Amino acid sequence: MSITTPKGFVAAGLASGIKASGALDLALLATDDGVAVPTAATFTTNLAAAAPVQVSRDHLAAAGGRSAAVVVSSGNANAATGRQGRRNAERMCELAADGLGVTADQVLVCSTGLISYQLPMEPIEAGIPVLVASRSGSVEAAADAAAGILTTDSGRKEVLVRGSGHTVAGMAKGAGMLAPNMATMLAFLTTDAELEPGTLADLLRIAVRDSFNAMTVDGCTSTNDTVVLMASGRAGRADPNVVVDSVTEACADLATQMARDAEGASKVANVRVTGARTDGEAHRAARKVAESLLVKCSLNGEDPYWGRVASELGSAGVDFDMDRLTVSYGGVAVCRGGVSVEHDAAAVTAHLAGSLVDLHCDLGLADGDGAAMTVDLGYGYIDENRTTS
Amino acid sequence: MSITTPKGFVAAGLASGIKASGALDLALLATDDGVAVPTAATFTTNLAAAAPVQVSRDHLAAAGGRSAAVVVSSGNANAATGRQGRRNAERMCELAADGLGVTADQVLVCSTGLISYQLPMEPIEAGIPVLVASRSGSVEAAADAAAGILTTDSGRKEVLVRGSGHTVAGMAKGAGMLAPNMATMLAFLTTDAELEPGTLADLLRIAVRDSFNAMTVDGCTSTNDTVVLMASGRAGRADPNVVVDSVTEACADLATQMARDAEGASKVANVRVTGARTDGEAHRAARKVAESLLVKCSLNGEDPYWGRVASELGSAGVDFDMDRLTVSYGGVAVCRGGVSVEHDAAAVTAHLAGSLVDLHCDLGLADGDGAAMTVDLGYGYIDENRTTS
Repeated sequence: MSITTPKGFVAAGLASGIKASGALDLALLATDDGVAVPTAATFTTNLAAAAPVQVSRDHLAAAGGRSAAVVVSSGNANAATGRQGRRNAERMCELAADGLGVTADQVLVCSTGLISYQLPMEPIEAGIPVLVASRSGSVEAAADAAAGILTTDSGRKEVLVRGSGHTVAGMAKGAGMLAPNMATMLAFLTTDAELEPGTLADLLRIAVRDSFNAMTVDGCTSTNDTVVLMASGRAGRADPNVVVDSVTEACADLATQMARDAEGASKVANVRVTGARTDGEAHRAARKVAESLLVKCSLNGEDPYWGRVASELGSAGVDFDMDRLTVSYGGVAVCRGGVSVEHDAAAVTAHLAGSLVDLHCDLGLADGDGAAMTVDLGYGYIDENRTTS
Repeated sequence: MSITTPKGFVAAGLASGIKASGALDLALLATDDGVAVPTAATFTTNLAAAAPVQVSRDHLAAAGGRSAAVVVSSGNANAATGRQGRRNAERMCELAADGLGVTADQVLVCSTGLISYQLPMEPIEAGIPVLVASRSGSVEAAADAAAGILTTDSGRKEVLVRGSGHTVAGMAKGAGMLAPNMATMLAFLTTDAELEPGTLADLLRIAVRDSFNAMTVDGCTSTNDTVVLMASGRAGRADPNVVVDSVTEACADLATQMARDAEGASKVANVRVTGARTDGEAHRAARKVAESLLVKCSLNGEDPYWGRVASELGSAGVDFDMDRLTVSYGGVAVCRGGVSVEHDAAAVTAHLAGSLVDLHCDLGLADGDGAAMTVDLGYGYIDENRTTS
C-alpha cells in the first residue's frame, strides 16, 4: 500500500533539519515524467489561511487545474507569517520546480506545524534539491514521504482502494484538528483514473464533504488544512460515479485513522442524527453534539448522559421538539419521547467502554439524515495543547 | 448585602431533602405584602427548555409582566422530563401561591441540577409550605435563599448596587455554563425603583446582553438559564436610563463571580475585539476566540500563542484581514500586521500567570467593538463533567 501504487507517480521524504528532533520533515509527491496532470484540491476556509494555502490556490488556478508535484514541509506551518511567509512558500515551489524541470505554478506546497514562526529557509534551500533528486516509485520512497508530512501523529497514515479498473491511494497527517497546536489536516491522494480537472474537482468536493468534513474534534478550523488529489490517467477513462466512491472510501479511511490517533482520546464516536427537517439540519445538529465539550467529557467518563445531548440538539439552531426525541447508544434507546426509558443498562455500559461509540439521535420530525465523527475529551488533549513547547 | 435590601421583599431557604447531602435545596423570593409587582425575565433560548422555564414563561405572560414570588429548587433541573415535569413545575407554583395567598400564575419557578430525572415531589410537597412560612426580610433569610439555589458553586454569589435614589440587589448560582453538568445559570435581582413592566423588560434585556451573555465558558446553552428582576417601586419613580446602569453593574458582578468559580479554571480572561466592521462582528469574533478549546488550553498553559487566536478570528465568519491584525496580552502587543513582533516577553509571562487575563485583538478594519469573558480549560473541567455521579 503506497501513494505510488497508482501508476504515474513518484515520491520522496527527507530529514532536512526543520525539526530539531532529526525526524523526516520534507516530502515530495510528483508525476514520474514531469508532466502536469489533472489535480483537484480543497483548502481551509479560514480567512487566516497560511501562506502555502494562498500560494497553492493561486498556482492551481494559474495552471488550469493541473500540477506536476506537491512539496510539503512539517514542523512549521508557515502561517501568520505575512509577506515573508508567502515569499518562502513560493521559494519552496521554485526549488522543487527547478529540480523537476517544470514551472513553479505547476507545483503545490503545504506546510504543517507551529503557527506564527517564519520557516527556517537554510535547511529547506539545501534540502529540496536533495529531496527531488531522491524521488522514486519505490515503496520505501513512498513511506518516507508519508513520514515526512507528520507532526504529532503516532505513525504514518496510508490507504489504498482498488476500484474496478482504477486505483486510489492516499497519505495523510492529522491528529488533524485533533492535536491542532501542531495544526492541520493534510491529505494527498493519487489515482490512475483519467478524468478532466473539472470532473476531478467535483468528485473531490463530494468525497471531502462525506469524510473529512464530517469529522470534528475540537471545532477548530486550521489555517493550513489541504486535500490534494492528482490523476495520472494511466489506467484510462473512468466513470466519475465509480471513482467518487473509491476516493470517498479512501478519504473516510484516512479520517478514521486521524480520529483514532487523536492525542488524549480514548474513543471515537459516530454521532448520527435522523428524523431532522432536512439533511442540512441533521448534519448541523450532529456537529453541535459532536463539538460539545460536555458530550465529549461524558464520552470520556463513559456516561450515557443523554440529557446533555438533548440540550445540544435544542440549541443547534434546527427544528426540534423534545417530545419526539429518541436517543440511543449502541442501538439501545435510553430516551424516547424526550424522557428516560427503561433499558438494558449493562449493554449501554459495555458499549460505552469500547473504543468506537455509536450515538444515534432521532428527532422524529422528517427524513433529514446526517452524521459527524468526534472523540472524547481527556487530560491528554489539555497536555498536548496547553503550551507550544 | 442581601436580596432583601431593596425595600419590599422577603426571602427564605430550606433543606427539604432533594439533595442527598442535606444541603439547602429550596429558595423563595417574594414581595413582603403578597402584591404582584412589575417583573421581567430572560430565559434560555434552548429549544429543549426545561419544564420550569416553560411554566415561568407562561405565568409571566398570563400575569401581564407581574409576579409576587419566585420559588427555586436545586439538585434536580426538572429538564427533559416531559409532561410530568411540567405538572411538577406547576405544582411548585401552586404550593407557593397557596402559602402566599396569591394566584399560581403570579409565581415563577426555577430548578437547577441534573437533567433527565423527575423531581422528587415528596420533599417538595412537604418543604414549600415550611419554606413560605419562614419567609422574612432578615439578612439570614436572604443568605439561606442565596444558598438554597446553589449546586456545585463554592459559595453564595450576592451583589448590592446603590444607585442614585434606588437600590439593586442580586443573588445567583453558576458555575453557570461553567459546571454545566449541574446545569444552568440562575440570577434573581430585586430593586426598589418604580418602573412599568415593559420598561423593566427592556432594561433587563440590555443588562443581560452586556453581562451574562458576554460570558462564555464552554459554549453550551443550558436548558434552564433564567434571570428574573422584580421591582417593588418602594423608592418611587426612577429614570430607567439610570437604573439600567445599576442593573448592568449588578449582573456583571454576578457574572464575574460565576467565572471565577468555574471548576477546573485557574483564570478568567476578558477577550476584547476592536476594529471590526460592526459591533456585532466584534462580539461574534470575541465569542469565537473565547469558546476555542485551543485558546482555553493555551490560557491554562499561560502561553501567549497568538497564532491560534488569529486562526479563530479567521474562521469566525466576520470580515478579517490578517495583515491588519494586532494581538496584545495585558496591553503588550505580541503581533502587529499579522506577524510576531519584538515585545517584553517577561511582562507577557507575568500577565498570563495572573488570575485575570486581558486578551485584546484589533482587527484594524473599522470601529466595531465587542467582548466576551472566558476561563481556561484544565483537568478540573473534565473531572467535573465526565460523569454525573
